[in-house]
Amino acid sequence: MGSTTQVTLDVNGFFDHMVGEHGLSRADLDTLAPRVVDVLKTLSSDRKEGRLPFYGLPYDDQAIRVIEALAAELRSEFDTLVVLGIGGSALGARAVLDAIVPADRAPDGLDVLVLDNIDPLSLSTALDGLKLKRTVFNVISKSGCTVETMSQFMVVRERLEKRLGKSSLSRHFVFTTDPQEGLLRRIASEQKARSLPVPEGVGGRFSVLSAVGLLPVAAAGIDIRALCHGARTADLRASVLDVFSNPAALHAALLFLARQQRGASVHVLMPYSDRLMGLAEWYGQLWAESLGKRVDLAGREVMTGQTPVRALGATDQHSQVQLYVEGPRDKVVTFFRIEDHGCELRIPGGYEGVEELEYLSGHDLGELLNMEQRATELALCEAGRLNSSIVLAGLGPVELGELFHMFEVQTLVMGGLLGIDPLDQPGVEAGKNLTRALAGRRGSEAGAERVRQLLDRKRGEFVLA
Amino acid sequence: MGSTTQVTLDVNGFFDHMVGEHGLSRADLDTLAPRVVDVLKTLSSDRKEGRLPFYGLPYDDQAIRVIEALAAELRSEFDTLVVLGIGGSALGARAVLDAIVPADRAPDGLDVLVLDNIDPLSLSTALDGLKLKRTVFNVISKSGCTVETMSQFMVVRERLEKRLGKSSLSRHFVFTTDPQEGLLRRIASEQKARSLPVPEGVGGRFSVLSAVGLLPVAAAGIDIRALCHGARTADLRASVLDVFSNPAALHAALLFLARQQRGASVHVLMPYSDRLMGLAEWYGQLWAESLGKRVDLAGREVMTGQTPVRALGATDQHSQVQLYVEGPRDKVVTFFRIEDHGCELRIPGGYEGVEELEYLSGHDLGELLNMEQRATELALCEAGRLNSSIVLAGLGPVELGELFHMFEVQTLVMGGLLGIDPLDQPGVEAGKNLTRALAGRRGSEAGAERVRQLLDRKRGEFVLA
Repeated sequence: MGSTTQVTLDVNGFFDHMVGEHGLSRADLDTLAPRVVDVLKTLSSDRKEGRLPFYGLPYDDQAIRVIEALAAELRSEFDTLVVLGIGGSALGARAVLDAIVPADRAPDGLDVLVLDNIDPLSLSTALDGLKLKRTVFNVISKSGCTVETMSQFMVVRERLEKRLGKSSLSRHFVFTTDPQEGLLRRIASEQKARSLPVPEGVGGRFSVLSAVGLLPVAAAGIDIRALCHGARTADLRASVLDVFSNPAALHAALLFLARQQRGASVHVLMPYSDRLMGLAEWYGQLWAESLGKRVDLAGREVMTGQTPVRALGATDQHSQVQLYVEGPRDKVVTFFRIEDHGCELRIPGGYEGVEELEYLSGHDLGELLNMEQRATELALCEAGRLNSSIVLAGLGPVELGELFHMFEVQTLVMGGLLGIDPLDQPGVEAGKNLTRALAGRRGSEAGAERVRQLLDRKRGEFVLA
Repeated sequence: MGSTTQVTLDVNGFFDHMVGEHGLSRADLDTLAPRVVDVLKTLSSDRKEGRLPFYGLPYDDQAIRVIEALAAELRSEFDTLVVLGIGGSALGARAVLDAIVPADRAPDGLDVLVLDNIDPLSLSTALDGLKLKRTVFNVISKSGCTVETMSQFMVVRERLEKRLGKSSLSRHFVFTTDPQEGLLRRIASEQKARSLPVPEGVGGRFSVLSAVGLLPVAAAGIDIRALCHGARTADLRASVLDVFSNPAALHAALLFLARQQRGASVHVLMPYSDRLMGLAEWYGQLWAESLGKRVDLAGREVMTGQTPVRALGATDQHSQVQLYVEGPRDKVVTFFRIEDHGCELRIPGGYEGVEELEYLSGHDLGELLNMEQRATELALCEAGRLNSSIVLAGLGPVELGELFHMFEVQTLVMGGLLGIDPLDQPGVEAGKNLTRALAGRRGSEAGAERVRQLLDRKRGEFVLA
């Protein structure tokens, strides 16, 4: 494996030469370019000073070896690994598991299931379907305080204890959590269970190439070195201080201009491959949670961000494309096209002379899918709608690794241009506090009073039952 | 079953008394109310004059009997039914199948699989997993020209012919298509296969309660009379000429005001139940394709519509809620809460004295999920973000039928207020034409020339490989 990129970014669809007067001009981009380079320089110095440790993940051979060794252990002991985690603790692994088909995994890879909600029916159905004896649970939470994950953990723990005895707990749990502190670290020690660290300073949505994402994926028999290799290739490209040869920076710059100057408040990710929907979900968290901020770094109220939307080609041509082509000009659509889908399925003949069908004969379904991508892209251009395309030769761990890293840097560059902190998420605290109050946690009496006051404001005339 | 509603709509979160200065006032709504009543009157007269035949679907006992009889036949002959369809031919059935668990279906119900894409790997994996002898394929396309569905059909047809012989074709296909015309009707006759009509004048996204949605669902053993019963209950409510006692009209009016006066360009549907994600997808097509329009009824360019987004509670609290709470004030969030999830799963004890866990003990997971919904709703209110809640006592076919009909009317009322035609989708033609051109259909030479011209405009400097 060299370090040649497997990912092509085509941004023609942002520009006036493709989409007409609503497009950006080359001059718009040239004007912004110096600011983009400044942001890249800041990222580079933050990285050097250790403030962005996620950059180091794909280079951390020691950590990768530890993860591989533990994954090999688990593969020899179990048939199934269940992730108990939510948000950044679930989305990275799921993106990889969705994309890499069983044929491209090691034959002894475990079945991996990601449970990231507390819907009682789904959870109990999933748990009932497991052979507990052959199942290991990977509990992932940095703090150990994540309500959903800890509730799942408590349910599973009781079930294991009842069915397999208390002694099973040490063997059937693997904890991925803070290396030193927190409740889950304490529980791991008490249970004498295996564990891995969430590296210091790596937030959930930037953690896919840490133990958080890599252990489940390695347990499934997927080549995590190839993932990291892809990320390193992307890192080389994303470190170039030139907007025209740095895809992460170029895409961020254009999304920024589209947002600020063309009203693009929505970023649609539309892969023409079922296997990339997990990546689109992962991106949805990265983009929404990193950029959706009330205040900028100077404390001014800005209420910024761009709403990520995931759509699936060709399916959503019959659902969302009418809106994208004719609705408000408030979107950028980014297509994904895979040149080789890794599977041939030819449309047979049998309808010669039937005008509506005969032309389909002989085409491969993947080829047809890609024609639909191209057609939709060009239809958007003709309608003056901004778009870009990410083209992959194939879809394997190398490509995924590149995409993960490219999108992470793209997000940081966008954050820099918007002038906000892309690494925090202060807006979710209020809801967490109110949940604790509703559930009766001690010390949350003030929250309970707020709930009462808010509910008291509701008016019966606005409740139709 | 009486005709009491099972669906409560709480719209307090649209108003200033809940969300502060960014909310609507009662006066805003009072001012709009007469226009809403006008739209309802127009719908009523359109309905009487036969221009909106979807209204009649849940009352068509004759059609329902025919569907039930065919479904019973299929249940006695097969184990699996596979839907080949896309867009409106797939989303309604999938919404019901997602929501109604096997325990609530007839014991002889078929496994039903909905294949709505042409991703070659997914399709061939799905087909390889079938016992063809025990499988019937329900091909759904009104025109019989839908490229994706017809490609799937050709692939499946060849496979059946090869494996089970030409004589199998009549037995293993059921066609749901135009009653008189079109290619698929011709094929149904030629193959001497069973078929059902797509009723005249019923568009894909309004077809869930026709044979399109009802046959697969009845084949799965789901009570389609209960679905229709729910829809009739909703119809009574949605026919009342008063915005304050008609939930479909009230919700449409408030979404309209939020869009026109408060910049709400995005409508998020956020069910706190895994089982309602299919409904959110179905709604996504209904809302996007019906309202996303370039011109109004007078031919003026308006480029209107509202972008539907689906989010899942509690999962997306860890992904999207940061953006909803702190990002641009461009959204309305509609929550779904199910009071009884139909499954108990209690969080056990074992962590007495551990502050972070002890308060969780004893709560049922469904109860906790609903607390999180409530907490997120109130957190949005505190942040001045518009929202509404749909509360269901439980989740069965009656509730789903109500929701389908309520949202269909809500969409028509919104279309009336926006002054556009909610029943057409002219914006998807361009892409279809370009696909045909790329695939080499005869007569599409002009399209092929357009493709060449568009591709020629691309500039190499904007392609980073």
